[in-house]
Amino acid sequence: MITCRSYRDGELERETAFEPQVVRAARENGHRIWLDVVDPTDEELETLRAGLGLHELAVEDSRRWGQRAKVDLYPDHLFLVAHGLDLDGRDELADREVHVFAGGGFYVVTVRREPKFEFDKVHDRLAIAPALASEGIGYLLYLLLDEIVDGYLDLVDRLEDLGDDIEDAVADEERGGESGEAYRALAARIFRVRQTVVRFRRLAAPMREAVDVILENQAVATLPLAPYYRDVLDHVIRTLELLDNVRDLLTSARELQLAQASNRMNIVMKQLSAWAAIILIPTLIAGIYGMNFNHMPELRWLFGYPFAIAFMAVAAFTLYRIFRKREWL
Amino acid sequence: MITCRSYRDGELERETAFEPQVVRAARENGHRIWLDVVDPTDEELETLRAGLGLHELAVEDSRRWGQRAKVDLYPDHLFLVAHGLDLDGRDELADREVHVFAGGGFYVVTVRREPKFEFDKVHDRLAIAPALASEGIGYLLYLLLDEIVDGYLDLVDRLEDLGDDIEDAVADEERGGESGEAYRALAARIFRVRQTVVRFRRLAAPMREAVDVILENQAVATLPLAPYYRDVLDHVIRTLELLDNVRDLLTSARELQLAQASNRMNIVMKQLSAWAAIILIPTLIAGIYGMNFNHMPELRWLFGYPFAIAFMAVAAFTLYRIFRKREWL
Amino acid sequence: MITCRSYRDGELERETAFEPQVVRAARENGHRIWLDVVDPTDEELETLRAGLGLHELAVEDSRRWGQRAKVDLYPDHLFLVAHGLDLDGRDELADREVHVFAGGGFYVVTVRREPKFEFDKVHDRLAIAPALASEGIGYLLYLLLDEIVDGYLDLVDRLEDLGDDIEDAVADEERGGESGEAYRALAARIFRVRQTVVRFRRLAAPMREAVDVILENQAVATLPLAPYYRDVLDHVIRTLELLDNVRDLLTSARELQLAQASNRMNIVMKQLSAWAAIILIPTLIAGIYGMNFNHMPELRWLFGYPFAIAFMAVAAFTLYRIFRKREWL
Amino acid sequence: MITCRSYRDGELERETAFEPQVVRAARENGHRIWLDVVDPTDEELETLRAGLGLHELAVEDSRRWGQRAKVDLYPDHLFLVAHGLDLDGRDELADREVHVFAGGGFYVVTVRREPKFEFDKVHDRLAIAPALASEGIGYLLYLLLDEIVDGYLDLVDRLEDLGDDIEDAVADEERGGESGEAYRALAARIFRVRQTVVRFRRLAAPMREAVDVILENQAVATLPLAPYYRDVLDHVIRTLELLDNVRDLLTSARELQLAQASNRMNIVMKQLSAWAAIILIPTLIAGIYGMNFNHMPELRWLFGYPFAIAFMAVAAFTLYRIFRKREWL
Amino acid sequence: MITCRSYRDGELERETAFEPQVVRAARENGHRIWLDVVDPTDEELETLRAGLGLHELAVEDSRRWGQRAKVDLYPDHLFLVAHGLDLDGRDELADREVHVFAGGGFYVVTVRREPKFEFDKVHDRLAIAPALASEGIGYLLYLLLDEIVDGYLDLVDRLEDLGDDIEDAVADEERGGESGEAYRALAARIFRVRQTVVRFRRLAAPMREAVDVILENQAVATLPLAPYYRDVLDHVIRTLELLDNVRDLLTSARELQLAQASNRMNIVMKQLSAWAAIILIPTLIAGIYGMNFNHMPELRWLFGYPFAIAFMAVAAFTLYRIFRKREWL
Repeated sequence: MITCRSYRDGELERETAFEPQVVRAARENGHRIWLDVVDPTDEELETLRAGLGLHELAVEDSRRWGQRAKVDLYPDHLFLVAHGLDLDGRDELADREVHVFAGGGFYVVTVRREPKFEFDKVHDRLAIAPALASEGIGYLLYLLLDEIVDGYLDLVDRLEDLGDDIEDAVADEERGGESGEAYRALAARIFRVRQTVVRFRRLAAPMREAVDVILENQAVATLPLAPYYRDVLDHVIRTLELLDNVRDLLTSARELQLAQASNRMNIVMKQLSAWAAIILIPTLIAGIYGMNFNHMPELRWLFGYPFAIAFMAVAAFTLYRIFRKREWL
Repeated sequence: MITCRSYRDGELERETAFEPQVVRAARENGHRIWLDVVDPTDEELETLRAGLGLHELAVEDSRRWGQRAKVDLYPDHLFLVAHGLDLDGRDELADREVHVFAGGGFYVVTVRREPKFEFDKVHDRLAIAPALASEGIGYLLYLLLDEIVDGYLDLVDRLEDLGDDIEDAVADEERGGESGEAYRALAARIFRVRQTVVRFRRLAAPMREAVDVILENQAVATLPLAPYYRDVLDHVIRTLELLDNVRDLLTSARELQLAQASNRMNIVMKQLSAWAAIILIPTLIAGIYGMNFNHMPELRWLFGYPFAIAFMAVAAFTLYRIFRKREWL
Repeated sequence: MITCRSYRDGELERETAFEPQVVRAARENGHRIWLDVVDPTDEELETLRAGLGLHELAVEDSRRWGQRAKVDLYPDHLFLVAHGLDLDGRDELADREVHVFAGGGFYVVTVRREPKFEFDKVHDRLAIAPALASEGIGYLLYLLLDEIVDGYLDLVDRLEDLGDDIEDAVADEERGGESGEAYRALAARIFRVRQTVVRFRRLAAPMREAVDVILENQAVATLPLAPYYRDVLDHVIRTLELLDNVRDLLTSARELQLAQASNRMNIVMKQLSAWAAIILIPTLIAGIYGMNFNHMPELRWLFGYPFAIAFMAVAAFTLYRIFRKREWL
Repeated sequence: MITCRSYRDGELERETAFEPQVVRAARENGHRIWLDVVDPTDEELETLRAGLGLHELAVEDSRRWGQRAKVDLYPDHLFLVAHGLDLDGRDELADREVHVFAGGGFYVVTVRREPKFEFDKVHDRLAIAPALASEGIGYLLYLLLDEIVDGYLDLVDRLEDLGDDIEDAVADEERGGESGEAYRALAARIFRVRQTVVRFRRLAAPMREAVDVILENQAVATLPLAPYYRDVLDHVIRTLELLDNVRDLLTSARELQLAQASNRMNIVMKQLSAWAAIILIPTLIAGIYGMNFNHMPELRWLFGYPFAIAFMAVAAFTLYRIFRKREWL
Repeated sequence: MITCRSYRDGELERETAFEPQVVRAARENGHRIWLDVVDPTDEELETLRAGLGLHELAVEDSRRWGQRAKVDLYPDHLFLVAHGLDLDGRDELADREVHVFAGGGFYVVTVRREPKFEFDKVHDRLAIAPALASEGIGYLLYLLLDEIVDGYLDLVDRLEDLGDDIEDAVADEERGGESGEAYRALAARIFRVRQTVVRFRRLAAPMREAVDVILENQAVATLPLAPYYRDVLDHVIRTLELLDNVRDLLTSARELQLAQASNRMNIVMKQLSAWAAIILIPTLIAGIYGMNFNHMPELRWLFGYPFAIAFMAVAAFTLYRIFRKREWL
């Protein structure tokens, strides 16, 4: 499905289905057009290619998804791949790839697939600031990029919150006696969020170079637009730095969790071993008085039995005190 | 064995065994020739060197296998080393090295050894798009490189699948009670796939520079061909990034597996120690009533024996409850 | 709240609330003005933007906090983000962000929020060295940066002290018998201080590039001021290097603590196991003489019982000696 | 000892002991001379310095051994340090440093110490290809470098074999029940070979820059020689990459060995603990029937004893089955 | 205290206390002066600043110690910070910072504090080679730097020896049965020496850039001096590379020590557990014959007791053989 928006003097004139003559008209009258393509068929892509004179490699690239963010410059247009990103319910990354062709001084083509990245805010901003729109398609491209990269900052915020949650959970684990099950769930969660952060970083990092390429292209990033593109670039860099923060936090949390688990385990093993030693001593005493020697004077004492029990208790308690003092218990 | 393909106006004219006069004819008539050499003898290489005026160092290099991917520029030809890669049955890398000499504006020589990298698709594409073939040997070189690098992306896909399998296997291990044998097999598998990924990366990484060198050579990467070479370069970079993803995934999986094994071991040791303590307490009680003191009133009680058994049971159960509460059991 | 300081010939002439005509007057009379804004409302920022001709993106940026340190150059002014840093009571970083607009040859605007970074020393230094102030607003910018970066060096000093404390605590732990609780507290402290160091580094590192950008801008970093800016740059680099030192120290301390804990645990487990073995041997002997065989000559010996006790003691002591010799006890 | 070889038209004319007039004669007649110095005394070095006009710093450097590979350029000669490398019997690196002075368009001085790097192949190649020798001393320098760097590739081959051996040994260890002694020997071997690889890398890495420096010096690396030097450079890079491979392999092998040892240990501890629990249960039963209560009906049963034994056996076997099912045994 | 050395034609003319007119005289007569300042007061620094026209920032920097090595270039002089380094008795770094002002074509000021870096060898070398001294103050600066950097190479030698000692100690530990105390001491020593190496690297690394800055300043590093400065640079780089070697060695030693300790611990735990199991079996047998059943035929056998003892011995020995075979003992 191809939607064609035609802008005259920066204001939306009409929104129609795509027809080749719209392109011709726009080219002749100096209008700008935005062709928005969702889940295109091969025929639709071919129509676009022929109508706008797109390079066959760019269109070929646009057929496949899962590309890295980049800007390819062709003689009279550019091809941009960017990744709109979101979190799904299981803290995993939902990747909404967007392909953009922009060129000829008057057209922008956006290609998306379902579930698609939403452009609602871009429409709003185009309606609010029509003056700037007259600066050319570089402005529309900026709005698209800005929208995508703003999503990165939102996403980083949420990942930072997740990181803080995890940090708290690790600290709680330290205090409370943690069961193996909860420990495992937390470890798996750290692993999962960390994977998400790493994947996010991999998808966002090439945007830096992509925006750089646009910035050097003064036909698109005109002098008044340059600060805006630099702003986008700044946001990309900030995203990457904040992601490094989160990744570091998660790595530290994992290490701390491991150290704590090891420490807890050590304490438990020491306690169990100490208790075993405490039980073994009375067992030995009981064994001694269970020997069958004929001549064991204590056996005939009237208070031999209470004495033996007391002996056991004293021995066990002394051991307990020693372990306590050495902080093994 | 040397097969000689002669192209006139981009179309395959004839396919013969190599003879020196073919070269001379091609040079004079402006034909392009593709000499495909499989498992060459030293004499064949020498014939080629003399016939085409190849540099002795390039031919020398071509005698040895196991070279890193590179492009060496000589005054009137270039020498390319690339690695066609595949997975064998044991998830290990099958390396199919290809050497290419291209130059003089009309010849391309490919040197392969058994088991050899297949060029079937290249022949198909040459047949389909003869027009472009008239752009010169740079197009043929592009097709060769594109074929090899497309293989990288396929291979990365398969490694990503292997990585996902391993991730699932680690998660399963977490749930089920895993035997030492299965654990060991999984650890060895992670190790093996990771080695494969690392070797893949080492073989593919120098391709980046190699393609760069060709891109800067405008006699080969002519203006219309440049976007195509940039596309190949883009695929190489994407391959490397995806490989980094897989490597990261495997490293995380290994760490998670280690952490899980350690956690499982801790749980087992705690359980075993706790059970030992639970058994030791009744053993102590039995030892006490096995003492031979003359004056032990309980021994004469009618219900002394059931009482003692009950005492043991209560003591053991109390301990069990305590351990249960502390989540050691 | 906006405070406006007006300087004539480097000396403070008057300090008033902000009014647009002050700007006009300063521009015409060649005075310098310093507008200090604390917790600005959107209206105040808009007034400033209009009055000084600030770029909308810079003002937009200034509305949001948590930016990375940077210098954005606009046609006739620059926008600087810097982070004044301090430690709060819990060894965590207190970040006091400062935004600065400087340009037009005569104005500097500082934007802060509560709890705010204090400029007392800057005022003092401006009063002491008025001559240099006549060199232009670059001098004021230098004072601001110098103040912020001097704070970094103080902070690094305190972190180095914390690092040394931790190193000593780890060494003490090695000597004394450390309880699990103290161990855990120290581990958490290392974790916390390390996080602080990492965050500090992330906030301070971009300052390097920011000061570099100013240094290349000869309108601000004039020839006589350049050594001063280079001095600031040098302090930033030194801060980063010292932070690397502290981070390394903390990493090593953590590793040493882990190694010590593991070593201590090993020693304790060995001791407990050895003691268990020492107790088990007399228990076996007691068990033997507790057997009910009719024909056990020892049982009828007069000194059978003392002999058995002595036998146990000798066996236990021999084992003790063996363990002692092998250094397991 | 200084041997002086004089070449006329690329062919060896005569081989004599060094005398200053040989230098003068060579300079005047356009001959090339190769002075080969082994274990020089200070006087011999001084004679060379004076006779050839070598820079005092270069000669000073040549007095000390253990230098990093480098090329120092002086106004009319260059000073090269390179390391011929070999493995001694204990898999450790034997470093055979070679110093070379080359300049004045006609002389090459090689300085070696015992045990010395052998130049036999260089002599052979000089004899075979005299034509090229007429290209100047750059050719001789190339032969020397090529000889040294070819040694690197041989050495890397042997280290790769060692790495494969170790990988196999680790895999064998996984299968067989490995004693502590063999484990320790293998760990120490991995450590030793890894040290060798690291040292090799450190000695070889600066060669890259050294050859680069020569390549930029067109008086030595003349146009026809340039591809040859690039070939050497390519071999150095390949050496470094292969070394990285080996190092990675060894790191992985060590990690795998550690993981295996830990896994084996866990299995053993679980088995031992499980067996202890299996023994403790019958011990408890025996303790119970060893109690001295007057009223214990079982004691008087005719088949009480076999019953008790059977009870023990059943209890132990049940436990054994449980452990077996949980894969602890 | 300021000592003033005045050189005429490269030879020391006289050595006096500092007086301002000495500077003036030297400037007029073309003499070189070397002002050596030890533990200067603020007044002395101020006198120097005024007398030589030093930049206030440089003097300000010189008041504080603990600076990173650097060269600051001012319009007519340079300011150098370098660190003379030594080992104190406890293998820790003794840092002897040296500040140098050099400029005006005729003066060098060295600032040191107690315990101070010694310049004895510099004086000797100045006396031996007066001719070069006439090349200007760049020569003196070279001598100072060369002295400091030679100290680095000596220090690296000693650290390499320490590293080798530690490697041997770790290997010895592997063979002998190591007590916990010795283990701990060695671990702490590795930690300490590693800290020293890391600090050394941090202090020495910036020297590389500092010498680079001087090399680019052709007023100081004149054409004949340039090779000498390059020699110093080469030594700095070599120092850094050798330090990396030592650090790697120490890291490996620590890892090996950890692995060995873990291995030894595993062996001990296996042995103790195995011995416990060996003792538990006879205990169970003794418990069985301690049961009070009326009908236990063995109890009445004449050789029942020796039989039971033999039974225990055989059971224990069989277990011992099994453990031995599995290499658990």
